[in-house]
Amino acid sequence: MSAIPMERPVLEDDEAAALTGLAARVRELAEATVLTGADAAEAAAVADEVAALTARLTAERRGAPPFVTPGERRMDRQIANPVTGPLNPFAPPIGLEVTSDGVVRGEFTLGAVYEGPPSYVHGGVSAMVLDQALGMAAAATGTPGMTATLETRYRRPTPLGVPLQVEAKASRVEGRKVYASGTISAPDGRVTVEATAMFIMPQRFVTSEY
Amino acid sequence: MSAIPMERPVLEDDEAAALTGLAARVRELAEATVLTGADAAEAAAVADEVAALTARLTAERRGAPPFVTPGERRMDRQIANPVTGPLNPFAPPIGLEVTSDGVVRGEFTLGAVYEGPPSYVHGGVSAMVLDQALGMAAAATGTPGMTATLETRYRRPTPLGVPLQVEAKASRVEGRKVYASGTISAPDGRVTVEATAMFIMPQRFVTSEY
Repeated sequence: MSAIPMERPVLEDDEAAALTGLAARVRELAEATVLTGADAAEAAAVADEVAALTARLTAERRGAPPFVTPGERRMDRQIANPVTGPLNPFAPPIGLEVTSDGVVRGEFTLGAVYEGPPSYVHGGVSAMVLDQALGMAAAATGTPGMTATLETRYRRPTPLGVPLQVEAKASRVEGRKVYASGTISAPDGRVTVEATAMFIMPQRFVTSEY
Repeated sequence: MSAIPMERPVLEDDEAAALTGLAARVRELAEATVLTGADAAEAAAVADEVAALTARLTAERRGAPPFVTPGERRMDRQIANPVTGPLNPFAPPIGLEVTSDGVVRGEFTLGAVYEGPPSYVHGGVSAMVLDQALGMAAAATGTPGMTATLETRYRRPTPLGVPLQVEAKASRVEGRKVYASGTISAPDGRVTVEATAMFIMPQRFVTSEY
């Protein structure tokens, strides 16, 4: 039903490094696009150059985003993930670490492309970050799954352009269901957004390497 | 507290058109980056070219994303919004229309940069789309606000690369609070994700033009 296949190309380390560098430059270009004061003629000229670079990249095109080499958890292999993936220009990207006691933590800063209310993070972007962090906390229990429910409560606006903290932890596992909760905090330590979620491991994952 | 000011530059029509075209090209470049099969040397060479284009755009840089000319609802003016904004390469972008009876509707297709589980839309991306649609439905009541709570339920996976429908409507207004609900549906008409949310109009917006 989906137009993108499940099978994944796997990158060699040097390819992954080069593509990660490329994604970082495209991420900067996206922010520059939102903030540029270039006039119409210059914007159009740059657009033509961008189209030419896209043509170079699509000369060899994969059917699906690549993974990095196996041997790690599957979530870590998805380097094009829209929240954590260094290969994805759309991702901030947020480096989420899992501690030995299963706590997921990351520090991140969101720029102009993630703006909702003027000068604040879009509420949906905060939900996206929390979905990823809570999902990783769920996976850290050994029962990874897909999001079944996500409840997000916004306690105060989340500022753009300053270091934010995200933290998440699973609270319990019931069969194929895992419950997790987490927060986003501002530099002053105050929680701006909190979330709870339930993840369900699909039957087809139970015997796979997910 | 936020690093991005509230004040907005306002674009002339020709500037908005040129920047919208540029954003569309950068959006294509981002997808090409995730799917390219270019080798490490070619990826690095393209990255250098991208950096040069970023330098051209940042020669004149604004402090905040621009709005389009006044006279419309404020939400429509935010053309760099991460869900609906044609000026934002990070946005799909989704054209959300508000009918005369307050229903928000849009059709959209999400590509590889929005992938969560292999071949499916990231759960957090679906939440982001729903937050925006429900927020616009809330605003259509005449009481726009910031997201206070968002509850998202995932009924089945949402496929990438096929036309999806999003629909939202406000259910009731209580003072400065507005309740809304909505869904994302697959091409077969089945609901993949449903959401309810509550939005609160900040006191400072009550007398403003928001």
